Order: sequence, then C-alpha cells, then structure tokens
Amino acid sequence: MARLVGGGWALVRGMRTAGVACGVKKQGLDLALLVSDRPASVAAMFTRNRVAAAPVVVSREVARTGRARAIIANSGNANACTGERGLRDAREMACLAAAALRLEAREVLVASTGVIGAFLPMERLRSGIPEAGRALGAGDSRAAAQAIMTTDTFAKETAVEIILDGCPVTIGGIAKGAGMIHPDMATMLAFLATDADVAAEPLQQALRAAVEDSFHAITIDGDTSTNDSVVCLANGAAGLPPLQPGSEGYAAFAAALRECCVQLAQQIVRDGEGATKFVTLRVVGAASDAEARIAGRAVACSTLVKTALFGGDPNWGRIIAALGVAPIQFEPQRVSIYLGDHCIAANGCALESDWEPPAAALLKKRDVHLRIDLGLGRGEATVWTSDLSEEYVRINAAYRS
Amino acid sequence: MARLVGGGWALVRGMRTAGVACGVKKQGLDLALLVSDRPASVAAMFTRNRVAAAPVVVSREVARTGRARAIIANSGNANACTGERGLRDAREMACLAAAALRLEAREVLVASTGVIGAFLPMERLRSGIPEAGRALGAGDSRAAAQAIMTTDTFAKETAVEIILDGCPVTIGGIAKGAGMIHPDMATMLAFLATDADVAAEPLQQALRAAVEDSFHAITIDGDTSTNDSVVCLANGAAGLPPLQPGSEGYAAFAAALRECCVQLAQQIVRDGEGATKFVTLRVVGAASDAEARIAGRAVACSTLVKTALFGGDPNWGRIIAALGVAPIQFEPQRVSIYLGDHCIAANGCALESDWEPPAAALLKKRDVHLRIDLGLGRGEATVWTSDLSEEYVRINAAYRS
Repeated sequence: MARLVGGGWALVRGMRTAGVACGVKKQGLDLALLVSDRPASVAAMFTRNRVAAAPVVVSREVARTGRARAIIANSGNANACTGERGLRDAREMACLAAAALRLEAREVLVASTGVIGAFLPMERLRSGIPEAGRALGAGDSRAAAQAIMTTDTFAKETAVEIILDGCPVTIGGIAKGAGMIHPDMATMLAFLATDADVAAEPLQQALRAAVEDSFHAITIDGDTSTNDSVVCLANGAAGLPPLQPGSEGYAAFAAALRECCVQLAQQIVRDGEGATKFVTLRVVGAASDAEARIAGRAVACSTLVKTALFGGDPNWGRIIAALGVAPIQFEPQRVSIYLGDHCIAANGCALESDWEPPAAALLKKRDVHLRIDLGLGRGEATVWTSDLSEEYVRINAAYRS
Repeated sequence: MARLVGGGWALVRGMRTAGVACGVKKQGLDLALLVSDRPASVAAMFTRNRVAAAPVVVSREVARTGRARAIIANSGNANACTGERGLRDAREMACLAAAALRLEAREVLVASTGVIGAFLPMERLRSGIPEAGRALGAGDSRAAAQAIMTTDTFAKETAVEIILDGCPVTIGGIAKGAGMIHPDMATMLAFLATDADVAAEPLQQALRAAVEDSFHAITIDGDTSTNDSVVCLANGAAGLPPLQPGSEGYAAFAAALRECCVQLAQQIVRDGEGATKFVTLRVVGAASDAEARIAGRAVACSTLVKTALFGGDPNWGRIIAALGVAPIQFEPQRVSIYLGDHCIAANGCALESDWEPPAAALLKKRDVHLRIDLGLGRGEATVWTSDLSEEYVRINAAYRS
C-alpha cells in the first residue's frame, strides 16, 4: 500500500524546511525551521516526564489549538530546567519564527534538544531564526534533519506515498535520537508532515496509534526525556476532501503514518550509540498485546541481554531472567525462545541437544530476529533494539567464555 | 560501637571455610564451603525474580526450618533455568556437603552463580565437595571469598566486633557481586556469620533491616537476579545468652549486622565493572524515607547520570530528568542539588552564577558526594553507586564539550 519514496518533510506538497548553523553548538547545523505554506491541522505527543522543558510547555499550548504552521527547533541546548527565563526564551523563539514567516506566534511549535540546565544563547537565535526563514526550500529536508542531531551519527528522514481515490498523498518526516541503553532518557524528536486533509482530532488519533507501534516500541517506558516531542502537520495540499475516521481512506492514511513512524524509529535504533546489531524482538503468547509489549521492552532494556547480543552469545538465560522481573503474567516453564526459526530454549529450560553452534551462527548477522513465546495467550508485540557494544560490554560478553 | 576487624566468615568463633578449584570454571577457585561447627540459627533473603534458580529453591526450604549448619556455593554456573535436573543437582550438592561434614542435607544451604541455562558438571562437584570438606579452616576466609567470584575483580570480606556485657561478639561475612548498570541483574551473594546467640526470627528481622540499608541501597529495584541470596548463621559461640528483640544488646547487634552488610555492599559498588568513582548519593527532603530511597535509586540507575559522573561533568540536568520519571511526590521547582557542600542547582533551575568550575573540581575526586534536597518533607535515604566509564560512555561524557 504505502510506498517508500525517500525524502522527508519537504517532499510533501506545500511544506518547506531550512537547516542553518547559528552557533548554539560549537560547530555544525543547529537550527531547523519546518513550515507549511498553508494553514494546517496539528497533532502532537510530548514527554510524560514531569520535568517538561520550556519548548514543550509552549508547543503544548500551540498543539491544543489544533492548528499550526511551523516548527522552530534547535540542537545543542535543551532549554530544560531553565525556569521563567527559559520559558521566555522559548516564547521568543516562536515570535522570531513567526516574524520571519509573517505568522502569529501561536502558530509556531518550538523544540530544543541538547544540554539540560543551561540558558539559550538568545542573541544567536535572534540572528539565526531570520536566516533560517530566508533559507527555506522545498523538496530537500536534509539540512533540517542534520540541524536537530545531537549524538546522532546520521540524519534521519523518510517519506511514504499512498494513492487515495487515484490521487497521491504523501507523508514525510525527519527525526533525531540515538540513545542506547535508555533511549527514553535521550531526547527523541520527530516532525511529520502530510498533504492529506485531516482534522486535528482524527490526526491525533492516528498519530497516537502510530507512536505506540513505533517510537514507543523502541523506548523502555514511554516518553521520558524532558524534551521528547512528536509533531504532525496536515495541510490538505493533496487536494482531497477531509479524511473521515472510519473511512477506508482514513485507515490507509493511518497505516501510512504508522509506516512512516516505524521507519524513523528503526533509524533511531540503527543509530544506537556504538550499536553493531539491529534486533527485532517479537513476543507472542502473552496474556494481552499490552503485556507482550511490556515483556518485549523488559528484554530490550536489559543490559545483560544487549551485551550478550553484542558478544554473539545466545545466552537466553539472561532473557528469561529479564522476563522474570517484568510486571506481567508469566510462567517460566511455559516460555520458549527462538533465534530466527531456531529454538534455543523450551519450557523455560535448557535444551539437552547441542543447540548452540547454529544459534551462535545466527547471532553473527547484523540483523537478528528473536522470538519469545510466553505460552499463555494470544497477545503479541514487536519491539526493536540494538546491542550494547564497547569496553563495558567486553567484560559481560566474555563472561561465558 | 562496632569495630571493623578485617577478616570474614571464618574470623567468627566456631565458623570455618574452604575455597577450592573443582573445575566448574575453566580455571581458578570455584567452590566455597562455609560451616558452623555447632548448631546455628539461620536467616536468609532470596531473589524476588520469579525465575528462581534451583539452589534458591533448595535454600529457601532450609531457611524455613530456622536451623542450618553449612553453605555450599559454586561459581561459574548459576544452575538456573535447568528444570527438574537442576533441582536434583542442587539437592545433590547439599547431600554431598552433608556427607563430607556428617550433617543432614536439610542443614545445608546451596548457592550458585554464573551462567544461566547450563547444567552443572556434577562429576566435578562430586569430587570437589569432599575436597572442600577436607580443606576447611578457621581464621581465614579469603579462599572462600575468591571461590564465589565471577566478574568480580577482588574478593569481598569484612568483620566487625562489638562488646556486649563485656564479652566480644563478632559478625563476619563474604560477598560477591560486581554489576554496574543493573547490579540487580548480576547475581549478588553474601554469607554472614556471627557468634551471637540469636533465634531465627529476630535474626531474620535484623537481617531484613540490614539488607534494606545496604544491598538494597545499591540495587535498583530489590533482588532480581535468579540467584541472589543473603544468608546469616548465628551459632552462639560467644557464650552469651540469647539476644532478645527490644533489648539494648539486640539493637547493638542489629546495628553491627547492618554495618557489616554496608561494608560488603560498598565493596560491591567499588568493584563496579570499569568504575572509576564511588558515589554516595544522599536524598533528603522527600515525602518519606521510602520515597527518598526510590528517588536515590532512580538517579543511581540512570545511565546518563553515571556517564556524566565518569566524564567529570556536573550535568545536574540529567539528575533532575531522572527524578522526573520516578514514582514519587516531586515538584521540580523545589529541588536543590549539591556536590559536597556546593550548590549546583536551586529550585529546579540553573544558577546564573559561574558554579561549574568548583563543581567540576569536586568531580575529579575518586569519592563523590551528591546530595539532593526534594524540598518536600523529612524523608531521607542514602544509596551508593559507581560511575559508568568506557567507550559507550565516552560518547555521552563528551556530549557537552
């Protein structure tokens, strides 16, 4: 259905981006501006951390109106734990962007990522934001995607196209995030745009479902950095009538939005700091889908599991130990674990056969598929994670040998 | 009150130990036997992981009787996730030790630590356990402490002496454990002995309180490896009458037992894999002591906090972000954070002054004292943790510069 078409935010009709270097970071691009040339609906999800950064406070206000035109985002400084002064600075960022774009400040969302507890160098943003306004362009979002990077090693963007009533509809987005052990603690930003016509409420529904199956499937316990934000603007530039919840077109759009989010989430996992493997972890046989997700996250979050994966060690005992402390229905003696299609533990117990050599061979690949059958019900979920490499890891990875 | 006297289990009157190499590990000592020469009360706490290893199942049965004479413990293999066969093997270990000591098997606790999901090489234990029986000696516990090491880089032992009614009473113990990010996932074993006369029930009370303030103050969410065990034997060899709960003598004993456990717990933290710093984290001003403990653990568990400590970066924003997701009463704008006596953040906000250079200087030391004032109530707790060094860390530690 949905066809990957590369690109990013600015591949979408009526959407433009800019990425400039304004000096928040010591070097490199650090300021992104993302704009819809016409009025747009907005949906957004923000961190649940009780220490929400100033830009999150400002963006929540904008998102609540259901309408937005632009996002101004900087890297290098999170503008978090900065009190009233930080809030003033975030509001000024929105004003500066609005002035550059001849919009109202209440149409501009703000995002920041970087160091917590330092004040923004506003004088640099006062010259940088107008410059970004002048640099806006359609088609290419690469500079904007680069400008929101912190510890990321590559820029993340994607776009998908679907055909609705014979008319192409595009969804494109950029993201940042490269956390490893606790991706929830390193800020994750994702900015999506579509030329579909979707009202704010159904857009929010579709975004919530898409995030649950994508960004929440790579994090441990939801959105927990001070700055996490996922924003989607829909400007209707495709020329189709508004998508109605319950319709076939809305379902196709929601699926495409989910695909877009999954693509970006997987790019974040592939950029795990020092990661050498991309792990798809499927949990089946859980009491419910929600419990399957919890189980998957518990395993994906285990440092000992991740170090074993790096070491190429099919140490399933660490998997079952991680499950043993997850808050789910769980009977160890019903659990089976598979690497690819290869069973490495059955009924919660070691196999007597010589299962290790083929399992170790499967672990040599860059893409690893793990499946855990809890043997209880029909609940299923997929999460994605990376391995944990490097020095600390050498200790744990070598532990068995 | 309590005086540190070095030593370990076998420094206690009527207690002996042995540590031998029986071949569970490829090399080195891997089998410890710890014995009381006379009948003793036993108290014990075990993992709360629902995947309890076979030796834990066996030891729970012994501890329930309130009486025990010996502990047989191996490293190199956890005998966890090994089903019925593993349970038979653990029971045989108890039988072999009982035979070597001319005891009943139900007087012998069993502990194992190492790889999960592999069967024990019983033929080696069948020759090793009698050998350990022949090697028993008083005074020195070093070999036993070495024989339970896995990723530990040094053997852990301690002993304290108190004077009760003019009579010296000793508590000594050995421990293993060197986990870093999730110490809860790497097995922690501690074996304590005393020549005080304490019945099983008050001994259990004192042990539970001591563990809460020591081993639980270095772990994240309690006992969660498959094999964690803390055992204390009291044989009355000091010649004093039984210590009665509520008495002054019992209180002094309980405090000394706590001190012993704190000493061992701190040794485990100092042996954090690759750790370069020993961090004492004091939380005050919490709504309750329990919430202070939860807050302390949340911060101590944060990978981003630990990497900042390694990098010598007083990045208190990561501390407040970790608090923001802890399940406690918390108002960001009331939080102050201190390095030593030096305030680095007040009222949840960055300081305008140039606080960083003195803070960075304090972070250069091996021992770091962090204090967090939640500004809400009178709850307090102390936890200990280490920093997170190495390659992964270099990325995060260099993030600000």
